Amino acid sequence: METVSEIPALRKLVDAQRKQNASIGFVPTMGALHAGHVSLIEAARRDCDFVVVSIFVNPTQFGPSEDFEKYPRVVEQDLAQCHKAGADLVWLPTTEIMYPENFSTCVTVKTLSQVLEGKTRPDHFEGVTTVVTKLLLSCLPDVAYFGAKDYQQQAIVRRMCLDLNIPVEIKTCPIIRDTDGLALSSRNAYLSESERESALSLSRALILAEELVNAGETDLNQLKAEMQQLISSTPLLKLDYATIVDADTLEEISTPQPAMVALVAAYAGATRLIDNCPLSVDSAQ
Amino acid sequence: METVSEIPALRKLVDAQRKQNASIGFVPTMGALHAGHVSLIEAARRDCDFVVVSIFVNPTQFGPSEDFEKYPRVVEQDLAQCHKAGADLVWLPTTEIMYPENFSTCVTVKTLSQVLEGKTRPDHFEGVTTVVTKLLLSCLPDVAYFGAKDYQQQAIVRRMCLDLNIPVEIKTCPIIRDTDGLALSSRNAYLSESERESALSLSRALILAEELVNAGETDLNQLKAEMQQLISSTPLLKLDYATIVDADTLEEISTPQPAMVALVAAYAGATRLIDNCPLSVDSAQ
Repeated sequence: METVSEIPALRKLVDAQRKQNASIGFVPTMGALHAGHVSLIEAARRDCDFVVVSIFVNPTQFGPSEDFEKYPRVVEQDLAQCHKAGADLVWLPTTEIMYPENFSTCVTVKTLSQVLEGKTRPDHFEGVTTVVTKLLLSCLPDVAYFGAKDYQQQAIVRRMCLDLNIPVEIKTCPIIRDTDGLALSSRNAYLSESERESALSLSRALILAEELVNAGETDLNQLKAEMQQLISSTPLLKLDYATIVDADTLEEISTPQPAMVALVAAYAGATRLIDNCPLSVDSAQ
Repeated sequence: METVSEIPALRKLVDAQRKQNASIGFVPTMGALHAGHVSLIEAARRDCDFVVVSIFVNPTQFGPSEDFEKYPRVVEQDLAQCHKAGADLVWLPTTEIMYPENFSTCVTVKTLSQVLEGKTRPDHFEGVTTVVTKLLLSCLPDVAYFGAKDYQQQAIVRRMCLDLNIPVEIKTCPIIRDTDGLALSSRNAYLSESERESALSLSRALILAEELVNAGETDLNQLKAEMQQLISSTPLLKLDYATIVDADTLEEISTPQPAMVALVAAYAGATRLIDNCPLSVDSAQ
């Protein structure tokens, strides 16, 4: 497994593979890799001939009061995980490489970026879409892998690639959960033992929604209220949203439709947590 | 010479060339081709193995009160010019291909888009940068050619490609002028005989600035005032700006520096005209 920092070096290695007709898989990450990231690298390994992982803690997607400074940085450990999961190349750009002097361009996905996470984190997705464009166009893979845990992010990245004709296929891989149901996140490291116990209410709210749908509940507003109640009544948790949306447009819906997703967000202490679950209308009988 | 509309068809033809190691040159246009566009196609022909020209009158770069509806559309004539200038492929996307339902992404180059043209045409450059990103990423040429007449546009496109790591080299080709000095523009077709005569004041103002610099004038504010005076005193012309800026940052300057450009914009009747000229500090002796 090789590592590079500079973009010309990255391109040289990827181009050499492409010239040999190798398919290129790419997993963009902010490091602090957990089993969720590993599942993305493994998916790329299964699908593609050459697997590139990027590790870059992107400052522009953090709000001024967010956790950019304390975001976990464990590069040696990350490199070992990349190697074990089958990565061929790890790209570690610096902030200076990504945002040189006089940098002034941004990519914005208007509608999808304003709802849900976008309401609480107003510049977050502009930071994400700008850096993901840069990462994709620097590497130019055939396929890029995103986790379903950041549901809105992968929906926005899909829309962006479609809209800008970025010639990369986006694959979204399932959420990986701890044995107790908590969706894996690099930010789980911030949780105290009691906050972590409370955090389980997020996945429990989603399971509850699924169970109610399976039991025949078709009043989505009722479902939302039940999820909200479960999270709000949990000690140490502060609900941000618990809702059900159209899987593509992310518009809130109140009657069942074929493609819909339940999404929840809450703070456990100072730590923001999100989770989601597709709801199947087929089971709504 | 072939023509295509759909992006997959374009990519198939370009990819086939790339697989044979052909270098790809690309000239994005809005049609109504004149000798300026032809010089870009010819430059691409000289430099590259395979030359693609796009013709698309992009609605999003026109303001609500601008000339989108009446912008000249002469496709048969354009195709003949492309063929004669040596194009291999002309791409003619429709508005539906470029902006499908639910399109919602934009690319913005913040600082450079707000000055000069951006002051009078507030959403113009966002329309340009978004469509140029789409055009470049659909075709993925090695080199794309832009005219120096739209000086700010090529500066913004360069900044954008650098910032977003768009893997395309931007080449800017010299302004082509009519024998009387008027910079060629598809919009010159709108001018009455007397407006056209007045329009010559734009290039005359630039020549005056050049002559004054050559004669040793180093007070750029004086130069600007002379250019402004020449344009303002011309019947039928309404001055927008006549200024001297840093060639890269487009910041207005008042003392000479190695890379600087004089830029002018004015209305002749309802028709907006622009022109520019690099000023050489070497001659400022």
